Amino acid sequence: MPILSKKAVEMPASPIRKLAPFAEQAKKKGVHVYHLNIGQPDIETPSVALQAIKNMDRKVIEYSHSAGFESYRKKLALSYQKIGLPVQFEDIIITNGGSEALIFGLMCTCNPGDEIIIPEPYYANYNSFALMAGVKVVPIISSIQSGFALPPINEFEKKINSKTKAIVICNPGNPTGYLYTKSELLQIRELVKKHNLFLFADEVYREFCYDGAKPISVLELEGLEENVIMIDSVSKRYSMCGARIGALVSKNKLIVEAALKFAQARLSPPTVDQIAAEAALDTPKSYFDDVVNEYVERRNILVDGLNKIPGVFCPKPSGAFYCVAQLPVDDAEKFCQWLLEEYSYENQTVMLAPANGFYSSNQLGKNEVRLAYVLNKEDLTQAVKVLNEALKIYPNKA
Amino acid sequence: MPILSKKAVEMPASPIRKLAPFAEQAKKKGVHVYHLNIGQPDIETPSVALQAIKNMDRKVIEYSHSAGFESYRKKLALSYQKIGLPVQFEDIIITNGGSEALIFGLMCTCNPGDEIIIPEPYYANYNSFALMAGVKVVPIISSIQSGFALPPINEFEKKINSKTKAIVICNPGNPTGYLYTKSELLQIRELVKKHNLFLFADEVYREFCYDGAKPISVLELEGLEENVIMIDSVSKRYSMCGARIGALVSKNKLIVEAALKFAQARLSPPTVDQIAAEAALDTPKSYFDDVVNEYVERRNILVDGLNKIPGVFCPKPSGAFYCVAQLPVDDAEKFCQWLLEEYSYENQTVMLAPANGFYSSNQLGKNEVRLAYVLNKEDLTQAVKVLNEALKIYPNKA
Repeated sequence: MPILSKKAVEMPASPIRKLAPFAEQAKKKGVHVYHLNIGQPDIETPSVALQAIKNMDRKVIEYSHSAGFESYRKKLALSYQKIGLPVQFEDIIITNGGSEALIFGLMCTCNPGDEIIIPEPYYANYNSFALMAGVKVVPIISSIQSGFALPPINEFEKKINSKTKAIVICNPGNPTGYLYTKSELLQIRELVKKHNLFLFADEVYREFCYDGAKPISVLELEGLEENVIMIDSVSKRYSMCGARIGALVSKNKLIVEAALKFAQARLSPPTVDQIAAEAALDTPKSYFDDVVNEYVERRNILVDGLNKIPGVFCPKPSGAFYCVAQLPVDDAEKFCQWLLEEYSYENQTVMLAPANGFYSSNQLGKNEVRLAYVLNKEDLTQAVKVLNEALKIYPNKA
Repeated sequence: MPILSKKAVEMPASPIRKLAPFAEQAKKKGVHVYHLNIGQPDIETPSVALQAIKNMDRKVIEYSHSAGFESYRKKLALSYQKIGLPVQFEDIIITNGGSEALIFGLMCTCNPGDEIIIPEPYYANYNSFALMAGVKVVPIISSIQSGFALPPINEFEKKINSKTKAIVICNPGNPTGYLYTKSELLQIRELVKKHNLFLFADEVYREFCYDGAKPISVLELEGLEENVIMIDSVSKRYSMCGARIGALVSKNKLIVEAALKFAQARLSPPTVDQIAAEAALDTPKSYFDDVVNEYVERRNILVDGLNKIPGVFCPKPSGAFYCVAQLPVDDAEKFCQWLLEEYSYENQTVMLAPANGFYSSNQLGKNEVRLAYVLNKEDLTQAVKVLNEALKIYPNKA
């Protein structure tokens, strides 16, 4: 048979799904598995969005404009303006989820062999998108001790060379939950300007900021109009992960024009889902207040609970709905597999995502896991208890 | 500002949308434009699919499996089995339209710099997908005189070298409407086996075959189990272009495994649309009978009408809903622009797609246009009349 491409071989399997077969086995044995491994919220999709789908009266599910329905882009632009972001509808390309926005963005800015710098740990699929574009990811370590704050700028400077085309940040961060401060973003601004780079910011968790913290968008950074590409998505905001509606947003007209050509090639983003996403823009503020309150309580249960377990350290995140915790084990991946394959407490176990999949530097994150607090409070309380009991008897402690 | 990538510069604008601004101008002047340029059918989406959307009772629009809902893949596999194709659900990855299936397929099989051979004229977006994957398209001319039949196999042989990784066909063809015969497909089979190539077949128009012609899938070609990648989509079949649900189908397990890793990176195809696509599999046969009868009548009106215009030649296609016609003009693109910009007949004009965008060989198709017969019979009759009148007075005749 003909041989596959290098990309087919090198494309990583998803680190959050790698252990799925072991979870299936556990379930077959009748063990209840608490899924803290994936970012699929249990929060209900806003009813305005669900109703818009039910009320759709089209007889033909036609293509939309390749950049997305103009009505949706206009209303989305307005929603950005309301939070102080200077976005016009012409600055927006609607995409198949945030994923496609980043793929288009990378392909529009980077040639094969070019480099992008990303503070690690970072969303694992960035590796896959970079591989598709033939781009090399250059990681910079942010440490769990600092709560995953921005690494010192001189660490970036050391890695910048003639092949460096962009910095990529996720803010608030997946998997860390860290929210960059204004001072950190201003440092990034100076760096990007100095070296004439593109700046990608994945801001899909913008609405999930806690304890009064305010998210700052890269679109607010003055003088970076030509450099910034913001990646957005309705997936988490409206608990509509399956709608696959994202956006590439940039004030750089050449970027938007180029991204539109990529968008035209695949014709259009999904029509019904855009109708739902447009309607979701009318979600009342009370929905977000409720959701944020719920996540704060969940975070507190999970993070406070984790930090009470001997040997566990978990910085308290200000955003998103993930945290990264250090466990007193020699190899978190083996521990996660053991939890599913060999362990149960009162017929329950937990599924976690080993954090090393979120690092590209070898050997980093070996004793860390990512946890998503997307379960209800009772389940989270119980999951922490199960984890505590498991660590008491796990044979391969660090 | 930082400079864009080579791909951003080289990515072609869509040839079927290039003239859109002129159509807008014509409409602003109050001229009615008959759109024969795009493949957006006016046929109604089957009511089972629309109802499934209305009846969806999910409270959370969650991700599906990255390969698509198992229930959908199983039912889709069954639908292939019913038409004699040996497909199991494990052979299927559900994608964001046929477009994503081809992008995944190319990235899984070809390294940057590799070559794929495609008979031209071909669907213009293949160029864009090839560019994304860094792959070079090597065209082989099929001629309008033969009705766009398969070019002689020795023409393929001449182009095959160590970089050739795949042959790509579209059957029935867009833009030609040509349906490959069994003998032609057997020739392709021998070629693919002899040179150990991959064979991509875009079969999204399978249901649109006329005059008793039967489509043959590449999945029926014996001994090509490891070579064949079939691209499918619900877009045209169920007039659900905006659903963005396609599929990559292959009996080669390594291809499916690799494509799944690409699919995992972008998480999932759209959920609501998969529900609609699954329901659409219950569309009654009468729907397709009606649709095929309708298209045959439309084709006859359009193609017979075109051939009655002095100097126009249009082979009668057996499938899809496009045809390519030769016009007595020196430059079809200029003529198409003139139709929108300067011409009107009883306040009406027609929009056609210049065919040179469907050729990659320079200068080919300069006096050809693609026409989609996706309008009702009255409109098509009128559009042919307008075109006839226009050609009577067009100043730059060939």
